[in-house]
Parts: sequence; C-alpha cells; structure tokens
Amino acid sequence: MTTDERVMENTGLDWHSLYAQRTHRMANSAIRELLKVTEQPDFISFAGGMPAPEVFPVDEVRAVGDRILRDAGPTALQYGRTEGYGPLRQLIAQQMTNEGIPCTSDNILITTGSQQAIDLLGKIFIDLDDRVVMESPTYLATIQAWNSYGASYVGVDSDDDGIVTEHLEGTLQSGDKLLYCLPNFQNPGGVTLSAERRRDVVELAMTRGVPIVEDDPYRELRFEGEHLRRLIDIDSENRSEGGAVYRGSVMYLSTFSKTLAPGLRIGWVVAAPEVISELTMAKQGVDLHTAMFNQMIAYELSASGFLDRHSRDIIRAYKERRDTMLVAMEEYFPSNVRWTRPQGGMFLWVTLPDGMNAAAVLQDAIPHRVAFVPGAPFHPTGGGENTFRLNFSNASPDKIRLGIERLGEVLQQRAGESPRR
Amino acid sequence: MTTDERVMENTGLDWHSLYAQRTHRMANSAIRELLKVTEQPDFISFAGGMPAPEVFPVDEVRAVGDRILRDAGPTALQYGRTEGYGPLRQLIAQQMTNEGIPCTSDNILITTGSQQAIDLLGKIFIDLDDRVVMESPTYLATIQAWNSYGASYVGVDSDDDGIVTEHLEGTLQSGDKLLYCLPNFQNPGGVTLSAERRRDVVELAMTRGVPIVEDDPYRELRFEGEHLRRLIDIDSENRSEGGAVYRGSVMYLSTFSKTLAPGLRIGWVVAAPEVISELTMAKQGVDLHTAMFNQMIAYELSASGFLDRHSRDIIRAYKERRDTMLVAMEEYFPSNVRWTRPQGGMFLWVTLPDGMNAAAVLQDAIPHRVAFVPGAPFHPTGGGENTFRLNFSNASPDKIRLGIERLGEVLQQRAGESPRR
Repeated sequence: MTTDERVMENTGLDWHSLYAQRTHRMANSAIRELLKVTEQPDFISFAGGMPAPEVFPVDEVRAVGDRILRDAGPTALQYGRTEGYGPLRQLIAQQMTNEGIPCTSDNILITTGSQQAIDLLGKIFIDLDDRVVMESPTYLATIQAWNSYGASYVGVDSDDDGIVTEHLEGTLQSGDKLLYCLPNFQNPGGVTLSAERRRDVVELAMTRGVPIVEDDPYRELRFEGEHLRRLIDIDSENRSEGGAVYRGSVMYLSTFSKTLAPGLRIGWVVAAPEVISELTMAKQGVDLHTAMFNQMIAYELSASGFLDRHSRDIIRAYKERRDTMLVAMEEYFPSNVRWTRPQGGMFLWVTLPDGMNAAAVLQDAIPHRVAFVPGAPFHPTGGGENTFRLNFSNASPDKIRLGIERLGEVLQQRAGESPRR
Repeated sequence: MTTDERVMENTGLDWHSLYAQRTHRMANSAIRELLKVTEQPDFISFAGGMPAPEVFPVDEVRAVGDRILRDAGPTALQYGRTEGYGPLRQLIAQQMTNEGIPCTSDNILITTGSQQAIDLLGKIFIDLDDRVVMESPTYLATIQAWNSYGASYVGVDSDDDGIVTEHLEGTLQSGDKLLYCLPNFQNPGGVTLSAERRRDVVELAMTRGVPIVEDDPYRELRFEGEHLRRLIDIDSENRSEGGAVYRGSVMYLSTFSKTLAPGLRIGWVVAAPEVISELTMAKQGVDLHTAMFNQMIAYELSASGFLDRHSRDIIRAYKERRDTMLVAMEEYFPSNVRWTRPQGGMFLWVTLPDGMNAAAVLQDAIPHRVAFVPGAPFHPTGGGENTFRLNFSNASPDKIRLGIERLGEVLQQRAGESPRR
C-alpha cells in the first residue's frame, strides 16, 4: 500500500482529487528541495539566493526596533491599513518623485516581500490561459506564483544585454496580459537590459497596449557603472501630459530584502492609483496587511539615510565575492564553458557545451560538497538543460574560491577539457 | 470626462478590461471603508475588529525582540523555510499532541496571519463555481478571499448554538469542496457551536466526504465556562486507528493575533501532512515565508508560558467590556431589538425588528459620532439587512457606555420604542 493509499484509507478522503486542478501545475521548486540537501555546514552552496548574513545591520535594527516599541508600541503591534504604513508610503512616493516620477501615497502599496507583489499582480491580471510574456530564463518564483492563476507563458531569449528586443517584437501581441521583466542584474541570468533596449521594450509594450511588470529587487546593488533609466522612468517621460501623479502602465516592484534584510518581508509596488487600488483589495483577502512593526523598522532605517550608506557596505562585500568567483572560474572552469559577468546583484549564469546536462553535473557535484541550481526550471517554456545559476552573495570569498575549485574539477571530468589558463 | 476615461486616455490602456474577471467579484469591504470615516479621535467606533491596544505586551515584545537580535540576529533577518520557524512548528505540534491530537511539525504550517491560511486553502481547494458551505452570517474576509477563486457559497442559518445542523444536513452534499465554520465566539455572530452540534457537524462532513475548515482565532478568549472539544478533537478521536500523526479531514486555523498582537501577522494551520505540503507549495509563490523575526518573537513568548498568563489579563479586560456593553444595551436599546450574549471573543450581534435597515441606522448614527458594521455583507448568500455587528474589545468601558447610549438614542428614534427598562 502506498502512502497515498494509506492516507485515503485513514481519512476517508482523496485529498488529491479534492485539490483544485491548478495546484498540479505548481512547479515543485528546485531551490526548495536543494536547500534541504545543502544545509550541512561543510557544504558550499551556490544554490540559494540568500544575502550574506554578515552584512545584516543587526545592531541598527535592534536599536530602532527598541525605540519603536518604546515610543509607539501599540501602533507597531496593532492591525494596520492594507495599503501600508502611511509614513513609509509617503517616503517611497517622495523618493520616486525626487527621481522624476511624480508619485503620491496613492501610487504605493507595501507588500509582504516583493514576492507578494508578484502574486497579487497575478491575482488581479491573470485568468486561465492568458498569455504572459517574459524573459527566458526568468525568476523561478514568478513562474510558480502565476502558474496558480493558469498563466500561459511565452518566453523570449535574452543575451548579455537582456531580453532580445528583435525577438520580443515578433512575439508580443496586443491582448497579452503582462510583460514581465527584470532589467537589472537579472535573477537568474545576471545580465542587465541595455539603455537602448529599455526604450524599445517600453515602446513596444505601449504600442501593443501590454502593461509591464518591472521587477527590480537588485537595483541598489550596482557594483560599477551608472544607474540606467528604469522602464518606469522611460514610461513616465513618454507621457507628455505630466500631472501630479504617475498613471502609466509600468508596475514597478522593489524590496527592502536586499538592502536591509529579507527576513522582515517588506517590499512595495509603484503603479497607477487604479492598479494600487485593485491590488489593495486583493491584498486584503490575502493577509489583511503587512506586519506593522517591520514596516516601521524599514521606514526608520530608510528615512534616516542609513540604508543608503549601508548599501555601499553591501556593494563592497558582494563586489569582492563576484570578483573572487569570476577569477576562480577563469582558473578552474574548462575552456568550453561560458558565463555572464554581472555588474551587480547576487547571481551569475553558466552555459555548458551543448548536450551537457546541468542536472547530471549537479549529481556529480554533491558528493564533492558543492551545489548550484540547474537552469532548466528557470525557462518558462522549456530548454536550458545545459545551463545553471551560481549565487555569489551568500558564501565567504574563501568558500567561493574553494567551491569553484571543487566545481571546476567536476566540470573538467564531464567536459573533458582543461581550464583556459 | 470621468476619472476612468481620463485614466484610459492618459495611459492608453483600459485597466478595467485588463483585470481578470474574478476581480470584479471581490466585495468592497464595508469594514475598510468605514474605518476611514471613523478614525477621528472623538468618534466611538464599534465597527473595527481590533484588540485593545492597552493589552498588548509591549514591554515583553521589546525584551524578547532585543534578546533575539542580540543572540540570533542573522537568523532573525535572513530568509527562512516556507513551512515556518522550526522551533515554533515543534512547539505548536507538541501543544496539539498534549491536547490529544497527535501531531509532528509536518502537521503545522506557519502563515502570515490566519488570513493567509484562509487564502491558501482557497487557492488549493477552490475552483470556479465550486460549492463552499458556511454559516450565515460568517467572517467577511473569508468571503472576500474565496471570491477571488470563484467560490459559489451556500449559507446555512445559525442561531444561539451556532450553525443549525438540521439545515446543514439538508444542504451539505458530497462533492462540496469545503465546510467553513467558526465554532467559538463567532465573528460576527458572537455565538458558540454547542457540544452536541459539534459532533453532528463532524459526522455529517465525514459521511459526505467534505473537508472542514475550523477557523478558531478566539478560542483562548473564553470569559466563562469550559473549553468545548474542537471539531479537530472530535475528528481525531473518531479515527480509531490512532497513529503518530493526525491525518484527518479538519484543517484547524489559529493565530497569535488575539493573544499576542495582530501587527506581527503570525498564524498557523494544523492539518494532515499532505495538506500542509500542498499549502506550503502554494505559500512559496505567495510570500516565500513568514517574517522570521516575528515568528521568533511569538515562539519565545509562547514557549516561556508568558502568553498563557497574558491571556488571562486579556480575558479580564474583554469580559469587563462585554459586560459593560450588555448592561448598557439593556439600559438604552429599544425593547424590540435583540442581541447575542457571547461567552468570549470580541463581537456581538444585533438583530433589529423586521424591515428595519441597519445601513440606514448607521447613516443616522454617524452624525452622533458612533459606528458599527451593518450585517448584510457578512451573509454569503444575501439577507441580514436588519442586523449589525458590535465590537466590544477595542473601546474602553467608558467609551462603550457612552457609545451604546448614543446608539440607543438613534435606535429609539428609528424603532419608535423605549428601552425595556
């Protein structure tokens, strides 16, 4: 008797037939399963997507947390507005306005991490079999979130300059529900959408009447070069009528998970007030509101200017880790393996020779106590079996060097080639 | 030109036609709109569902929060497992086991407030037009959450002993997706399902193969009398095979919002491991995990026994408020108005004479600086225009007395009758 049969006998119920059919389309996340294997301390994992715990501003969170509870304890512990903590919404609106996008609080919704923003957008936009266009590869948890609403994905190739706009032009159709894009240091690819392509993406989406979801968690983690204009910047400029409030068709997602701490679960959406209003209604049914205490901590540390200063420390640490990883890859990886060279963020992307299977490489790698995430699940419409993702933010430089050396040995055996130098 | 037309002109997009059709089925919450009107300080609002801020254990949260960040800061600020913080899951599993329901961590999912558990259950169980049977009236935000999955509601009357099981027997069908029930001090009705009816509800649901969602946020707020056996207790006992792990068909929801603080957003589900596994997959796409810091605070305050002691203080405060409200209602409300006498929780329920409209009474009441929530939106399939809900947990006893006096005057004018004494 299988476990399932035992369950049915014990409960008198067939759970599986009771679940909505859409459940079965939810991908079992490769990341989640891997995390369980790689939690032993002697393991070097490039598989997760975690910030370095060393950069968390523990003392500062401790100090403002204590002050908030002392001065405004009942507010921090009480139910709050679904839209979010007022001063935090105002602060973000002011920051956007300062950066050239006219916003008020009505343009801002605070979410329980940026992941919730993705889920809520799926909830209000996507019906069964609606077409959603996205880069391939793209963020795994967006695929998973929108699977539950029955999205039909259309993947568009990306290269070192991000989504290939010539291909997007031939793909994007009027009537597509959303165009989903991660323009900066993309997860998983590590690539950044070029300035020229950003203009083309906004133009194409506007012409065909397709709203854009600009998912931008890594923007503040730029190691070199200047910030590029966001899709929402370009869209706002294109709308010549001006006015006091952004009413464009880009929905911009950001988060405190990379600059402050992911464990607090605070993200936000910037969008037209009509969209914020619909998202707020949806959020009310989903979790009523985001934790007040956490929003107040994020507000205090952002309003004081601390997070801007702190981001420079994070950048310094992550840049060293990226550099360490790239140097070690040059040294240890076979010459027929290629990879991206991200200007920021937390991930880079490896492409093996055609026909080599990254999942098989992972199986070889695990006995060597090193892991990564195979690339296939990041592809919304298949492919990518010869690709994988490496995270460089979480492990220390020493561990990165050792882990890449181990992985290089595995790859050399598989690829039958030596390192390029 | 209307606002909508201006939006369309400005954006080149028709947002409303872009939203999924299901969005339009989301009820615009009466509570949310009302809260905006009643936020002025001289207003006495019985409309919200908020705990008394005076009973929040601010000092204790401050002390354990500080200690957690000092001793385990990086864990509190890092990403965590989707299932929840391990020690908290184990603690809840142990508590359930001690209470006679054999549980391990595999039976427990930590959620971002109990509201998220409701949403996730909708996501995995409910497809368009699936029948869901529930008490009428019932919790408004469940109706709202499950609207977004296209639930088709079937309401069953309740009286002073909870859902009327004779009516449930004629209503509940094999193939119904869920039976949703709030057995203790129900929101909004304030009534408690009797011991005999609890047995009947479990028996009926088991016979017809319908899983039960037992939503039980107020259980710890019992002012008098003994705890009644939960539906999950009865279900667990009925499964004679025993065994180490609960595999029954009741999904039990609880929360730290009433005993600790709602602003931390920590709730949980107890269910068969197969259900927890599906809920966990769904939660991953929804918000990855619940805030770690907050889970650790809840764990520390629960494991130390503080919350058990603290609940007694909350009970003392709320019992005084309930008593104050009931005495004032006897004094000021017309003799042709009826109401429930809850043994716990935060709400009671008022029934006006047939033909009197609670929404109209509310309009009269607002100039008198007092408010409540009209009962109609709590009815999943209509009705209840002559009913309304009063919250007694949030206002101080003095304000409760004054607010009921104001409301009594409004009701006397409408009802044309004097108080019964």
